[in-house]
Amino acid sequence: MARIVCKFGGTSVADSERIRQTAERVKACIDAGNEVAVVVSAMAGVTEQLIARTREVSPLHDAREYDVVVSSGEQVTAGLVALALQRIGVSARSWLAWQLPVTTDDTHSSARIRGIDTAAIEQRLTTGEVPVVVGFQGLAPHQRLTTLGRGGSDITAVMLAAALNADQCDIYTDVDGVYTADPRVVAKARKLDKISYEEMLEMASQGAKVLQTRSVELAMNQGVRLQVLSSFVDAPGTFLVDEDELVERQVISGIAYSRDEAKITLMRLADRPGVAASIFGPLADAAINVDMIVQSASEDGTLTDLTFSLAKSDLDRAIAVLEQEREKIGYADLQADSGVVKVSVIGVGMRSHAGVAARMFQTLAEKGINIEVISTSEIKVSVLVAEEYTELAVRALHTAYGLDTA
Amino acid sequence: MARIVCKFGGTSVADSERIRQTAERVKACIDAGNEVAVVVSAMAGVTEQLIARTREVSPLHDAREYDVVVSSGEQVTAGLVALALQRIGVSARSWLAWQLPVTTDDTHSSARIRGIDTAAIEQRLTTGEVPVVVGFQGLAPHQRLTTLGRGGSDITAVMLAAALNADQCDIYTDVDGVYTADPRVVAKARKLDKISYEEMLEMASQGAKVLQTRSVELAMNQGVRLQVLSSFVDAPGTFLVDEDELVERQVISGIAYSRDEAKITLMRLADRPGVAASIFGPLADAAINVDMIVQSASEDGTLTDLTFSLAKSDLDRAIAVLEQEREKIGYADLQADSGVVKVSVIGVGMRSHAGVAARMFQTLAEKGINIEVISTSEIKVSVLVAEEYTELAVRALHTAYGLDTA
Repeated sequence: MARIVCKFGGTSVADSERIRQTAERVKACIDAGNEVAVVVSAMAGVTEQLIARTREVSPLHDAREYDVVVSSGEQVTAGLVALALQRIGVSARSWLAWQLPVTTDDTHSSARIRGIDTAAIEQRLTTGEVPVVVGFQGLAPHQRLTTLGRGGSDITAVMLAAALNADQCDIYTDVDGVYTADPRVVAKARKLDKISYEEMLEMASQGAKVLQTRSVELAMNQGVRLQVLSSFVDAPGTFLVDEDELVERQVISGIAYSRDEAKITLMRLADRPGVAASIFGPLADAAINVDMIVQSASEDGTLTDLTFSLAKSDLDRAIAVLEQEREKIGYADLQADSGVVKVSVIGVGMRSHAGVAARMFQTLAEKGINIEVISTSEIKVSVLVAEEYTELAVRALHTAYGLDTA
Repeated sequence: MARIVCKFGGTSVADSERIRQTAERVKACIDAGNEVAVVVSAMAGVTEQLIARTREVSPLHDAREYDVVVSSGEQVTAGLVALALQRIGVSARSWLAWQLPVTTDDTHSSARIRGIDTAAIEQRLTTGEVPVVVGFQGLAPHQRLTTLGRGGSDITAVMLAAALNADQCDIYTDVDGVYTADPRVVAKARKLDKISYEEMLEMASQGAKVLQTRSVELAMNQGVRLQVLSSFVDAPGTFLVDEDELVERQVISGIAYSRDEAKITLMRLADRPGVAASIFGPLADAAINVDMIVQSASEDGTLTDLTFSLAKSDLDRAIAVLEQEREKIGYADLQADSGVVKVSVIGVGMRSHAGVAARMFQTLAEKGINIEVISTSEIKVSVLVAEEYTELAVRALHTAYGLDTA
């Protein structure tokens, strides 16, 4: 008998019919001899509606009241899923964050879980009662509701799995697993049976949308065996595992891309100590995250150009900050470009294989794609290219690294 | 300085614009020098949607999970109203039932409030912070959410006013007070400045929809001075007061009617001891409330006909119960009629004035309206008549008792 935490995302509980199907899936898992705890998101679209409401009422809102409003969607789903389970003969009850409790810090709207008290549900699990826990929601030290930010229900599920010492944490979503590339872009993309935590982490932070980085990180740190699978088809998904569990190791596991990229180039900067700090200090103060950075010497050797990438949504603010600091930084011109995309190749096999980056550059060159910025880590190579090349670049790399379906 | 509890119903918080107006109204009340605590309902229509959802998922639902789902609407409004108040410079915070707590018994879906712990908000009130308390919601002894049933937010408001020892409890709704009759039926209906608790109680139980009986009863028992007023117009509403506060006493304060009526007649019953018990026992067991009862002797003196009225929605179930018990009861025939309406004249002046009922019967007779059943209490006379006479009967009585606007 295994103990499994099943988390159902917004599309898995989108309406009454889907909620009934979700209940059937939980029942099947119990009938197969498992102990099951459930974590639920809000119905698809509900959280967005609630967020829009808070903005309508008060654009600069108190995050504590925002949390009261926005966390209500998960409460509704928890009650409904418990009802749907009871209806098909499965003993179940809902658990709100303050009832367990799921304790967090007091960073409202993006709180971090400190602990989940499982005493009450541990005992009931052994009697066959399914706890249906609201995802996304927590209880701050001052006894007010908090929410966990984007991907919050996944985080609840991972932390609950850790607290319950569960054998597995199944994340039910609207895709059937992690692919070698976005199947909407690459028709030959393959579903991966397994992927290492590190690779998944890079995939998530490089633009793959199936899981948020924070939940992958937590699963890795807490040693939670995570499976991503579809609630629409009855088939195994993709397991997140330790690297040493990957038997047949590919050099590259997947190709990711992110369209949420923009690029700023500062022209003819003085090449003196402290110039980088004069640029990135003010940006950091404005809470703007900079991703890739490249500096190129100009002809006379005393002036350089500096290019960096950032999220598209931060571009306007970043330009404003840099123009305000222009005197202090001392650059001749600022060029901004929001028509760029970041394409990344990811794989733990890179550690032991040379030539991975070279193959990437060669493949893109053969297709006539100019690389604007490059950045590498131990298990990934990312490049910034013009947005119009997105599909071409991803498909060419997918083929070049031998990832296409036979 | 007065301390006022303001309760806002569904139409007063129906959308973001209405929520902003509600906040302005609270601010005006504070600016006038009052200490204000707010109680909110769910946005108009939300609770009905949530109830429909629980029915879709599970027609025979667990009332504990029903409460988890259905109480979420008030949570959303409490957060939004707190945000709207903050936006216009009023210090405010939301309070969920479990945070105060509002403790109830464990009768899920129609729980009764046992107490409201106001320690946390008492102190904040004196600093000018407005508590925005979720209506309708409570916390059962086993630490689960409960709801208070129909009119639940009014009940929360009345109980909070009592617990805070408030000078007044203002119930903001979509009508501007209590009228001598339904203004949609009687163009000449007048708004009452004051009405006694007892009269309001009769009005509510005889079909006037502005307040539920339970909240009137509680206000009376707790000595809470209640005002019903509109959140759409800026004018005083109707105060519920002790009878001795009514200075200019009319014999009749108002005419109420209820369309939710049906009638059953059992023909030729044996006129023996225990026959009434054999009828109303099984109905009570089936949780069917019987309202008016009349028994008429038949010609030979040993057999009688018995007629009673009940809620329209209970009619089919009542017939089924009575047909099952036919042998035991021993009646010749059963006649059911759902085309009836109950019209009532209500007024504390009745106690000291004879002839009130006689005038009612005469007025109806003059209009050719046949009375099917009569029932009276100390301060009301009710009759059951054919539904088609509703408007005619209400208008004629309104004129006959001198209630028409000059």
